[in-house]
Amino acid sequence: MIGIKDLYSVLTAVVPLYVTMFLAYGSVKWWKVFTPEQCAGINRFVAIFAVPLLSFEFVSRINPYKMDLLFLAADGVSKVLILFALLCWANFTKRGGLDWSITVFSLSTLPNTLVMGIPLLKSMYGDDKEYLMIQVVVLQCIIWYTLLLFLFEYRETRTEVLSKFKESSVSSKNCCSEDEVINVIATTSSNQQQQQQQQTAQNANKIAPDQSQRFRPMVAASMEDGTSTTCEKQSVQAGQREESSSTAKGVESVKQENVENASIPSSFSPSMLLKILRKVWLKLVRNPNSYSSLLGLSWALVSCRWDIKKPQIMENSVTILSSAGLGMAMFSLGLFMALQPRIIACGKKLALYGMVARFIAGPAVMAIASIAVGLKGTTLKLSIVQAALPQGIVPFVFSREYNLHPDVLSTAVIFGMIVSLPITIVYYIVLGI
Amino acid sequence: MIGIKDLYSVLTAVVPLYVTMFLAYGSVKWWKVFTPEQCAGINRFVAIFAVPLLSFEFVSRINPYKMDLLFLAADGVSKVLILFALLCWANFTKRGGLDWSITVFSLSTLPNTLVMGIPLLKSMYGDDKEYLMIQVVVLQCIIWYTLLLFLFEYRETRTEVLSKFKESSVSSKNCCSEDEVINVIATTSSNQQQQQQQQTAQNANKIAPDQSQRFRPMVAASMEDGTSTTCEKQSVQAGQREESSSTAKGVESVKQENVENASIPSSFSPSMLLKILRKVWLKLVRNPNSYSSLLGLSWALVSCRWDIKKPQIMENSVTILSSAGLGMAMFSLGLFMALQPRIIACGKKLALYGMVARFIAGPAVMAIASIAVGLKGTTLKLSIVQAALPQGIVPFVFSREYNLHPDVLSTAVIFGMIVSLPITIVYYIVLGI
Repeated sequence: MIGIKDLYSVLTAVVPLYVTMFLAYGSVKWWKVFTPEQCAGINRFVAIFAVPLLSFEFVSRINPYKMDLLFLAADGVSKVLILFALLCWANFTKRGGLDWSITVFSLSTLPNTLVMGIPLLKSMYGDDKEYLMIQVVVLQCIIWYTLLLFLFEYRETRTEVLSKFKESSVSSKNCCSEDEVINVIATTSSNQQQQQQQQTAQNANKIAPDQSQRFRPMVAASMEDGTSTTCEKQSVQAGQREESSSTAKGVESVKQENVENASIPSSFSPSMLLKILRKVWLKLVRNPNSYSSLLGLSWALVSCRWDIKKPQIMENSVTILSSAGLGMAMFSLGLFMALQPRIIACGKKLALYGMVARFIAGPAVMAIASIAVGLKGTTLKLSIVQAALPQGIVPFVFSREYNLHPDVLSTAVIFGMIVSLPITIVYYIVLGI
Repeated sequence: MIGIKDLYSVLTAVVPLYVTMFLAYGSVKWWKVFTPEQCAGINRFVAIFAVPLLSFEFVSRINPYKMDLLFLAADGVSKVLILFALLCWANFTKRGGLDWSITVFSLSTLPNTLVMGIPLLKSMYGDDKEYLMIQVVVLQCIIWYTLLLFLFEYRETRTEVLSKFKESSVSSKNCCSEDEVINVIATTSSNQQQQQQQQTAQNANKIAPDQSQRFRPMVAASMEDGTSTTCEKQSVQAGQREESSSTAKGVESVKQENVENASIPSSFSPSMLLKILRKVWLKLVRNPNSYSSLLGLSWALVSCRWDIKKPQIMENSVTILSSAGLGMAMFSLGLFMALQPRIIACGKKLALYGMVARFIAGPAVMAIASIAVGLKGTTLKLSIVQAALPQGIVPFVFSREYNLHPDVLSTAVIFGMIVSLPITIVYYIVLGI
């Protein structure tokens, strides 16, 4: 049974996070302390220095030879279960689609373990459980974010292939080879990538919903084509389902002109897969979080193997900025909230779905997976509460970069932070009975 | 005798500060991570949140009923000695002047105790000496920064009175009453103050040397006036001495036109003094550092009197951001360094004088004062090394706000940080023999 004292100690850990967020929110929204560009500076500092150093600091302290394999298995199984279910839904149902699969995967499986999870769950289940959280963080950074990036790149490349194919077949009235299309994409996409990155840097705090329609009309047009094969249909269903409501009228008119374009490259060759992997790799090596987790893990492997300690100078050089990480991350979140025009950017209905995915579906699947692999007692509770944390920031950053439902993810981050405290505490109390 | 181990522990505390500064420097100078405006955002965050919370955190932990009065007396005596010597120099010598007195006072008595002093001196003389440093910080914030502000405001008001007087006497050919001049100044200066603050906020990282000549020609003109009384001469000598070399030629031509203007208000009435004090007060209540020290001291007084502890939630809410203070302050200093066009902005000669004031005159007077009040042993060493810390940031911020030798102070901060490590260590070793 959870007592008042336990609850107080949880609040002691969590309320300061909210106070910091509130300070940041107020200093932009009411007190006009920072301009948007100045906020971008703080956010950049957090993204490039504070949070990577914080995760390095945590990760480098674990013992990779004594991981809690059962706990990690539960985490892995739950994510694979959800991913499998979503891919089935995308491929074998009429209403399913890759776009929403990616978003729902982000929503239901990737909580904010580093910033919210560690202080919150330490206060709930004791300091000695911190290492479990850190292990989840390591896997999240090294495996799941990589997978998420792969899904995003896969989606983008596929959309580009289809649109390029459409373009070239319209202009030349001849079907060019898939390799040619790939070459065109490889050149243009690297330029686009650079441009996009510049934009991302500049608009670091704004969602750009106006860009989100970039590729859709073309894809939709090709999809409505009555002569395309089932295989094609399958691989482009993602866009189709999403477009079906919003651009239905526009599509109707384009449809008439494009009936002559028959065959579209359906699935990807190994060379295409390599190119996608290369792009994912490029994204990863540019992300300071990848470095910090990998460096931290390498250090942990070396130091535990040969029992080496970090020199005090190095340790202090990291902690001087990493100790800023937690507070600054929450501050940055508050700035982000204040810069959004609305708290619920995606509409109430989508926000509700998002909350269900985050706070009910995610923990439920985690509970099933945890019980299935045989977790018991505190570890079982921990794994469920961990799955009910508010939305992680990294999936939101990706969604903004790839323009895939950034409004939904932004709402999940912001609104999720607000509602998560009572929800997590309810989970904590219910599991404590 | 200081051993290698002692030295290593000092380096362990100080090198991380430099690493952080270097990271910030590199990220602006070489890696182009932040734009100047983004840097201003980080600096603003540091100035408004991180450092005030850090000083609150330190100050609120002291016991004001058990201050080391001897140590504080030494600190006070040394500062009063220097101030007295400088004011004598300004008033009774031909080469002396108020402007340079203020700057030399900043340089020789106001080191960076909060950010550099506490970690450095803790590592040298043990954790239990931290409270001495904090006491110095408290007095610096509450007494010495206030005095410094008063000197700056005094100088500015005097300059304005003189220039306004000149203006009105030139335009109306009649000598208006001092009260009228004061009224004009009170209105215009509050506008100017607002404008200046906006400018300061915008150019938070730039020194604006082009503004520094604002009031000088007028003052110089009135001072070269052969008919002015000795009393007048005394009170305006400040500007005169400084101007004598740089604007001598310009003055020569103005001189001829103004021979007719005879009497200038010489010293300040009580109402003028009140106005100055009011302006100082307005500056102080706008400065988060004043709040934080006063709040911290009040809390310390209350909590030590009735043995009350801060509630854990409040404590955590402060530490979550204050723990960012040290690293962020150094980071901010690095950003500042990178944004300056030159490390030595004021020329080599002035830089050398500045270094002598900071690292030789200051500690020497402190040593005399400390021995005079009867300090011995570790406390004596501590008080001398403390006086040899690099230049504090707050005096530089004031000097920029009032445009009084900001280049000299900026050099003292930047170049001082670079040379301070070896110098402080030499002091440490010499005092340890």
